[in-house]
Amino acid sequence: MTFPAVYTGKEMLKVAICGGSGYAGSELLRLLSRHREVRITAVTSERSSGSRVVDLFPHLRGLLDLSFEPLDPEILLKKADLFFLALPHAASQDAVNFFFSGGRRVIDLSADFRLRDPDVYEEWYGVRHEYRSVLRRAVYGLPELYRRKIRKARVVANPGCYPTGALLGLYPALKEGLIEPDSIVIDSKSGTSGAGRKAAVPYSFCEVNESFRAYGIATHRHTPEIEQELSVIHGAGVRVDFTPHLLPVNRGILTTIHCRLKNKDLDTARLLELYLDTYRREPFVRIYDGDSLPDVRNVRGTNFCDIGVRVNRRTGALIVVTAIDNLLKGASGQAVQNMNIMMGFKETEGLDLFAPLP
Amino acid sequence: MTFPAVYTGKEMLKVAICGGSGYAGSELLRLLSRHREVRITAVTSERSSGSRVVDLFPHLRGLLDLSFEPLDPEILLKKADLFFLALPHAASQDAVNFFFSGGRRVIDLSADFRLRDPDVYEEWYGVRHEYRSVLRRAVYGLPELYRRKIRKARVVANPGCYPTGALLGLYPALKEGLIEPDSIVIDSKSGTSGAGRKAAVPYSFCEVNESFRAYGIATHRHTPEIEQELSVIHGAGVRVDFTPHLLPVNRGILTTIHCRLKNKDLDTARLLELYLDTYRREPFVRIYDGDSLPDVRNVRGTNFCDIGVRVNRRTGALIVVTAIDNLLKGASGQAVQNMNIMMGFKETEGLDLFAPLP
Amino acid sequence: MTFPAVYTGKEMLKVAICGGSGYAGSELLRLLSRHREVRITAVTSERSSGSRVVDLFPHLRGLLDLSFEPLDPEILLKKADLFFLALPHAASQDAVNFFFSGGRRVIDLSADFRLRDPDVYEEWYGVRHEYRSVLRRAVYGLPELYRRKIRKARVVANPGCYPTGALLGLYPALKEGLIEPDSIVIDSKSGTSGAGRKAAVPYSFCEVNESFRAYGIATHRHTPEIEQELSVIHGAGVRVDFTPHLLPVNRGILTTIHCRLKNKDLDTARLLELYLDTYRREPFVRIYDGDSLPDVRNVRGTNFCDIGVRVNRRTGALIVVTAIDNLLKGASGQAVQNMNIMMGFKETEGLDLFAPLP
Amino acid sequence: MTFPAVYTGKEMLKVAICGGSGYAGSELLRLLSRHREVRITAVTSERSSGSRVVDLFPHLRGLLDLSFEPLDPEILLKKADLFFLALPHAASQDAVNFFFSGGRRVIDLSADFRLRDPDVYEEWYGVRHEYRSVLRRAVYGLPELYRRKIRKARVVANPGCYPTGALLGLYPALKEGLIEPDSIVIDSKSGTSGAGRKAAVPYSFCEVNESFRAYGIATHRHTPEIEQELSVIHGAGVRVDFTPHLLPVNRGILTTIHCRLKNKDLDTARLLELYLDTYRREPFVRIYDGDSLPDVRNVRGTNFCDIGVRVNRRTGALIVVTAIDNLLKGASGQAVQNMNIMMGFKETEGLDLFAPLP
Repeated sequence: MTFPAVYTGKEMLKVAICGGSGYAGSELLRLLSRHREVRITAVTSERSSGSRVVDLFPHLRGLLDLSFEPLDPEILLKKADLFFLALPHAASQDAVNFFFSGGRRVIDLSADFRLRDPDVYEEWYGVRHEYRSVLRRAVYGLPELYRRKIRKARVVANPGCYPTGALLGLYPALKEGLIEPDSIVIDSKSGTSGAGRKAAVPYSFCEVNESFRAYGIATHRHTPEIEQELSVIHGAGVRVDFTPHLLPVNRGILTTIHCRLKNKDLDTARLLELYLDTYRREPFVRIYDGDSLPDVRNVRGTNFCDIGVRVNRRTGALIVVTAIDNLLKGASGQAVQNMNIMMGFKETEGLDLFAPLP
Repeated sequence: MTFPAVYTGKEMLKVAICGGSGYAGSELLRLLSRHREVRITAVTSERSSGSRVVDLFPHLRGLLDLSFEPLDPEILLKKADLFFLALPHAASQDAVNFFFSGGRRVIDLSADFRLRDPDVYEEWYGVRHEYRSVLRRAVYGLPELYRRKIRKARVVANPGCYPTGALLGLYPALKEGLIEPDSIVIDSKSGTSGAGRKAAVPYSFCEVNESFRAYGIATHRHTPEIEQELSVIHGAGVRVDFTPHLLPVNRGILTTIHCRLKNKDLDTARLLELYLDTYRREPFVRIYDGDSLPDVRNVRGTNFCDIGVRVNRRTGALIVVTAIDNLLKGASGQAVQNMNIMMGFKETEGLDLFAPLP
Repeated sequence: MTFPAVYTGKEMLKVAICGGSGYAGSELLRLLSRHREVRITAVTSERSSGSRVVDLFPHLRGLLDLSFEPLDPEILLKKADLFFLALPHAASQDAVNFFFSGGRRVIDLSADFRLRDPDVYEEWYGVRHEYRSVLRRAVYGLPELYRRKIRKARVVANPGCYPTGALLGLYPALKEGLIEPDSIVIDSKSGTSGAGRKAAVPYSFCEVNESFRAYGIATHRHTPEIEQELSVIHGAGVRVDFTPHLLPVNRGILTTIHCRLKNKDLDTARLLELYLDTYRREPFVRIYDGDSLPDVRNVRGTNFCDIGVRVNRRTGALIVVTAIDNLLKGASGQAVQNMNIMMGFKETEGLDLFAPLP
Repeated sequence: MTFPAVYTGKEMLKVAICGGSGYAGSELLRLLSRHREVRITAVTSERSSGSRVVDLFPHLRGLLDLSFEPLDPEILLKKADLFFLALPHAASQDAVNFFFSGGRRVIDLSADFRLRDPDVYEEWYGVRHEYRSVLRRAVYGLPELYRRKIRKARVVANPGCYPTGALLGLYPALKEGLIEPDSIVIDSKSGTSGAGRKAAVPYSFCEVNESFRAYGIATHRHTPEIEQELSVIHGAGVRVDFTPHLLPVNRGILTTIHCRLKNKDLDTARLLELYLDTYRREPFVRIYDGDSLPDVRNVRGTNFCDIGVRVNRRTGALIVVTAIDNLLKGASGQAVQNMNIMMGFKETEGLDLFAPLP
């Protein structure tokens, strides 16, 4: 038996997912199937083309009745009003341009339209940006910072997972000018689904389980994205030390931000007040105002960003900890949130998810 | 911001949860808060009495605004129409009797009203059953077997987690008389949340992680419950060898059932047909009709029971594998399903959950 | 600094490892580097040929100073007196034949020389056995059953991981004729390193972690190996139902054996006595004579097989639980034990390993 | 069968372990039982007094034949020449003083004799230090910094687990004056065995598995220990921001150190050279000079501290990553190393351990 879709009577928005056989894609399938304003009309996968979705993803059995098709832009264009692109970096450029030029709305989960300066993109990703005019139209899809622009956007560049956790953690203190902008250390730890659904020895169970390691020190591609947005917030160039680690959990990013306060008289209570105030109306940001600190498990399977703050009075340091689910607030959940904003749906539609603990 | 409850206009059923600080309790809180037909009016916990729910369970922040209260039956009686009891075995007897006698409906997640014969209860649980007349009124809450009785029940004894997986796996073959009733071996493997939310060295992380062991061989208390129901299905006494194991995952029970077919000409295809046929109209049973086999991860966070069957033609054995989430179909999800049936709600209401993989 | 080898003054046995870049290979490297009677003179890997071992296996840094070389039989023949072959099934046939014919001793960790009947081998492995005369000379390397033969063997077929745990668990009861030979159910659960060190989505971290599933029901290739040896013990043909499962731990196999006792008067104490008696002189079998039951963690990193027994007096069933480390007693450790026996070394040399718990 | 002790002919040192029922204690039992120069004559545990060690720790079955006894100082004094104390903080003070005053050597794994200034001890641990003259005699047992003093020490304060990883990572760069001393951020992630073997909900499997969180921000008691030793190295007061996290693995601490280089012209190669040079003769420090970075799994079950260094040329930051096994180099292994140094044994005796990967 298939769970009956919840019909609201209204005409539903037709959406398509390009690149549906990875983890971001399967989460989009799960979220959008239960969304009361949309109908999935197509999902693509080159490798799994022709297979039923439930054969690749048995956990979705009973939820949907779709098969994967190849990514044929001409055919897809007619099928949907809005496209979610979960394609590899670089491969996304053409698709974004095509659907955008065809008058469709696009939410791109790749990095191709996140960096405003195409030279920076080329420096870090090693490929040319072919669509600079489209790039200028793209809006960076972090709703807490850019909600107004997202509303009118035709192309939304969905933020990277690490930047989402880092930016939401730094935004209140940096915009208020409370911290030394050259003191920012971002030490992040990501669950393994961040590496995608792929066959590779370093991500095999035995190599990750009971393991913990840093990677990409000083070279990770999310660095310029974080710096771009912090520079906007600060109003001048900001550089950061960003160090990611691989965590033996399926999902979740915990980001520990270390920085120095300009004013050593500030304390935890004062910072907490600022953070609570900044995010008061945000449906997906939760500030920890008690003794406990954010934990990736509390946001697992949800679109929340949980934030805790502490001031070290002995050293004058501010430590901010943020937790997100890298596949939801760090990818597919934020993409749905962006769609909700773009289309004028209720912002929390399809995202009223709370972690199934433990 | 608290997620706005979804008001349907109708008057909502008032429900209370007794014993809300364990894992079954926190899952009831999560499920019932999102249920469109009910309103939680009270949740009890002796240890956490007076605390806000979100202080104990930060993952529920934004979902509800309740505090724990002590279990005072007189006060509670007036607060709700239906009671979920997630109390320890033996402790549940009085509460069930009290609320039932007060004219309320009760869904009891303990073992106290599952065994029809109070002597068997006393033999395996070591305590007397004080309310034999209430026991006679209790219905064993496995909807796939007893839906009709559950509809009219005032006391539902919610099945144990192991029995749920074992019974749904054996029911089709046993009722058709296809297997030797004295050949049944039930080899179950349960995630650690089955042991409850408690402080004990054997369930500490370092003792369970990278570990796997059998326990309670030949003595586990779910044995008589399984045998009682199999005997009803078979129409005569059935005894089984039941061996549980502790699995280093949070959630999920995989049960591997081994038994002998009476007719060695039967094959997998024939058995599959029977299982598909038996459960055709069941919203929460999924039969695996392809190459893949059930996996606890596919039912994590859901109310499904996934089932796979294989016949070993060399030996004439039937092997059935079932997977459930021990906290949902094995406890709180099934309790909500039972409530939906008792109250005439849509049976899937509040339970349209699919596993957030990976 | 490299840890100084422990020189005993004696001339050391020269050993080579063919297929050293997998998990069995890296464990052979670790064990043999610390063995006081042998010197590793060569280790092969096609993919990693030319690389230093410590570049592939940083955990061995400081232990050895070897590089991988390609498997060139002619060159290798001159380098060593005894060969450990950790090659894929079928690929091992030629190498065993070559080194055996060249007068060297061989311990083969593949399945190629385990099944005495080449027709059974061809049926289950789908390839022809090209060296039947060598096969007749091969000894099945389970020391507890075949120590005397192993002493004189020139080719030892190192047992499969599942068969090791199953056979040691059934041997005492079956040889004494205490159980119904047609009632044997073997329900095994293996850590993921049993699948080898390979790039494949189903063994990636996110697909195995928080997961548990059966696989290869009624078709696993270790079935004929188990049946062959049980038939020898029983003195007549035995067939079993063998069901393996994939466990989200790195190492360890727990095997739960269910069978029926012929004599319903037997109890746990009597069986325990038999098991203790049978294995009294075995350095690597530990019988659990108290309340606790074997756990894979207690044998992790060791060459032990831990065994627990329980009789279910209600049903007349015997349940035996065995635990081994699949990479040690189930592969490389047993291979070293076999070498020790073949060469007249102390049987425990290089294997005095106890689990680093937790 | 018990593995025969390896007798060397020499008279063996008699050692006793006070507090043997925790993880540090069980590792001391495992290491010392295989040490060729010592004999364990007593092991204490109040809770398990009278029980055989193998009943509490089945994984040690076959290794030793000892029972726990209560901690009676008078009786113990006569039994051993050297005492390992794995007692809770504060509780250790009396025992250290008693055995020291009785002319015995003591290696104390608690924090009681690590902080040279008793006022700092009282500030952070909340108890008075009663034995200031003994404290002045105690040597901080980090061999890489204090080997010469340890040789003559009668009381060794075995370092904390976090300080060991932090200090070995900072020592080369700080002693050479290459980094800004006020820029040091220490972001550590510890396996759960660091919390000890105890019954507590927050350390239960379901609360730690699939979880990751920071704790003790700005307040962890290892902070003054790290600062004390960094101040000695630097020659002036140093304060650090130290943030520990709880990692869902059994063992291992990965410490990521972020700091600023004084000279922006330094690069990774130059730093690597310094680290290689500094630790050239150290048997238990391994510098990663290739592409790979330290991982807790590579040091699991070993006494190594693995170190990787990277310079971020864009920002002038130095990032150092260190990995230790918190129970070995972070506790019991370092204690045995200290004993080896104190007694003139070979420093690696009993510690020639390499990680059993995976």
